Amino acid sequence: MPRITLVQPRWLLQIESRNVLTGHALVMQDDRIAAILPQADAHTAWPDAAVVNLPDHALMPGLVNLHAHSAMTLLRGYADDLALMTWLNEHIWPAEGKHVSDEFVYDGTQLAIAEMIRGGTTCANDMYFHHGAVARAAIASGFRIMVGCSILEFPTPYASGADAYIQKALACIDEFRGEPLVGFTLAPHAPYTVSDATFGRVITLADELGIGIHCHIHETQDEIAGSLKEHGVRPLERLAGLGLLSGQLVAAHMVHMTDAEIALVAKRGVHIAHNPASNLKLASGFARVTDQLTAGINVGIGTDGAASNNKLDMFAELRLAALLAKGQSGNPEALPAWQALEMATLGGARALGWDDRIGTLEAGKAADMIAVDLSALGTQPCFDPVSHLVYALDRQQVSHVWINGELQLADGELTRIKLPQVAARARHWQQRIAG
Amino acid sequence: MPRITLVQPRWLLQIESRNVLTGHALVMQDDRIAAILPQADAHTAWPDAAVVNLPDHALMPGLVNLHAHSAMTLLRGYADDLALMTWLNEHIWPAEGKHVSDEFVYDGTQLAIAEMIRGGTTCANDMYFHHGAVARAAIASGFRIMVGCSILEFPTPYASGADAYIQKALACIDEFRGEPLVGFTLAPHAPYTVSDATFGRVITLADELGIGIHCHIHETQDEIAGSLKEHGVRPLERLAGLGLLSGQLVAAHMVHMTDAEIALVAKRGVHIAHNPASNLKLASGFARVTDQLTAGINVGIGTDGAASNNKLDMFAELRLAALLAKGQSGNPEALPAWQALEMATLGGARALGWDDRIGTLEAGKAADMIAVDLSALGTQPCFDPVSHLVYALDRQQVSHVWINGELQLADGELTRIKLPQVAARARHWQQRIAG
Repeated sequence: MPRITLVQPRWLLQIESRNVLTGHALVMQDDRIAAILPQADAHTAWPDAAVVNLPDHALMPGLVNLHAHSAMTLLRGYADDLALMTWLNEHIWPAEGKHVSDEFVYDGTQLAIAEMIRGGTTCANDMYFHHGAVARAAIASGFRIMVGCSILEFPTPYASGADAYIQKALACIDEFRGEPLVGFTLAPHAPYTVSDATFGRVITLADELGIGIHCHIHETQDEIAGSLKEHGVRPLERLAGLGLLSGQLVAAHMVHMTDAEIALVAKRGVHIAHNPASNLKLASGFARVTDQLTAGINVGIGTDGAASNNKLDMFAELRLAALLAKGQSGNPEALPAWQALEMATLGGARALGWDDRIGTLEAGKAADMIAVDLSALGTQPCFDPVSHLVYALDRQQVSHVWINGELQLADGELTRIKLPQVAARARHWQQRIAG
Repeated sequence: MPRITLVQPRWLLQIESRNVLTGHALVMQDDRIAAILPQADAHTAWPDAAVVNLPDHALMPGLVNLHAHSAMTLLRGYADDLALMTWLNEHIWPAEGKHVSDEFVYDGTQLAIAEMIRGGTTCANDMYFHHGAVARAAIASGFRIMVGCSILEFPTPYASGADAYIQKALACIDEFRGEPLVGFTLAPHAPYTVSDATFGRVITLADELGIGIHCHIHETQDEIAGSLKEHGVRPLERLAGLGLLSGQLVAAHMVHMTDAEIALVAKRGVHIAHNPASNLKLASGFARVTDQLTAGINVGIGTDGAASNNKLDMFAELRLAALLAKGQSGNPEALPAWQALEMATLGGARALGWDDRIGTLEAGKAADMIAVDLSALGTQPCFDPVSHLVYALDRQQVSHVWINGELQLADGELTRIKLPQVAARARHWQQRIAG
């Protein structure tokens, strides 16, 4: 017999139509949303169903973190306030070279997933090494994840060069085929770390496998200057020539874009992962998000890794995106609240090709959804729940999280992930790394 | 007999020397900090003292919110995503005109104070109407406040014109003389709402009374364009000519400044209240905070009112200040963590002329201090508490707040303010305002 639950929030957000329902129940059947209808009708149709009453809460789709390096939580606050190349060359890369292993990645990814679920994120588009460990951590946590298999030319302890990274990626994709909550992308790291030949192989393989591609593009002015010097063209022009720009691609950052580049990216259907906190912290620049959206580009929101953010707080990130777009464009009407919520939910789902299953609360979709308690001090009084979800909320107000129908957070407490164990592993790594 | 408490945190932040002590106790005697010394020495000297153990916590001075319109919490989220003049003319000012009263201001200020204490703010530099209600709400809450008495030319239900605002301010200052936690400033609203003659009177009166001045200056390009049209000069040049620019002045916003204006403001010792979230949300512009600091200007941090932020979260605000300064300057080394903490504590205290009593943890100062629990998920692992306080913290991690020696927040619970009453008043106003 199917397991039926009626979830009855004060407000139910329909992202797809920018509408707020009141007096409605969401009917969850096993791992799916079966229906959304007036509460009285739901009780008549399912008189014996379990009921979750959420009298002060907004119910909305779970947040999709569209650009993450989850395992880097273990390097949170390890080095800050430094120039990018100093930060990478003298701090992050040496620490990664010394410590990153299956064990590190598993523990760091679990810590990230715990933090993300606690804050209302139900799905992440990851990019890192040791892909098997990423997938295993997500499966153990019941978390929905797109595992990006990093590919670059230079050797790391994980692989000796592009061919080896690709072989490891293919083996991993094969190993986890059929896992319901896990998908894979090929993740050529960036234009300055990946050759034309490797990009070519990635495109061919992604096509054959029917999977997406995840790549850092136009993050800094230095990247663009380097490409002009080495290739005679800006990275986007080079990548367009190689055939990378398509609806299969999630391009992270895309901070520096000309009008022509925005038009090209829109035409090719490339998705953008906007990372406002990381772009500020590393002084990468101000992305032209309003212009990207106006051109019709699908833009989602990501936290980037915890080493350059330093929190995996998607509510803070979507607020920052909404604020920063107004400052960057000089227009206080830019990126209004509804649009920020759409970017952080449906926008992310679309970018992953998963908008058939997540991103909105609609019958037939997976029950990936969150309840947010708006009765807290910081969201009083409440004239408009949508405004508060974007501009006033703290992530601690997320009270309930369901992923694929499983209740992962109940009244603010993680149900599946064992917090003391995750914290103990973080302390273990802290001692080893600081050692 | 004096009441002695030994507060024993894992980390004790000395803002004045950018140093972190471990293994030390802070000795609180009644409302003062009596000493800071190794824990063993403290126990020898005060064997019978009460002890507060904070094994996972950082102890630091309370945050100073250097620009607030506290009562506007009651208009939180009332109108967003609008052009400034539409927002003011069609939403905020009509609502204020209809509803603002002693009762509104008292209730809204209490809500703001509850939110601020919960998030680690122990002092605010306020600016609003109905000053007596502001002062009474602060006194009833045991909160340290500088009450800014708004002065402008045009009439509101509170006063009929500049003379009437000034008379009300003087009466109020007289009424609350001797209140230990309450100070007053004269607060001419802005260059575009206050005449030369009124600025002149304000300067004379502030001198006579020995109090400070709080004014919005150079918030938007429109303000500057208007001044050029009306007065033939930019606002700062006009105000310099009137004699307003001095160490008595806290200038809120100061978004648009030429090099010469930065040099002038530095020379005159004017203090700046930087409001990063509000400046983004209203698309006012990007303040040149790094240049202001380099020139030697004392810059503190403020939230502005909850109608344009929409949260009174000083930890979020100091993080945003640190991130935004890097983006604005293009330098990832700009506004490092220690400097952000200094701006939000000692910087604010200096601006109010209260650095003799608050802003650092030093013997002889008032015990205005907060403990922050860094054992939470989002601040694991912890390589450097200072980094986490700025870049990774959520305000819910503030566990203890003392103001003038009174424990106002214990293990995350407000001890003095009655939360259900404050929330009920917020709901009352929400219903009245939403009609």
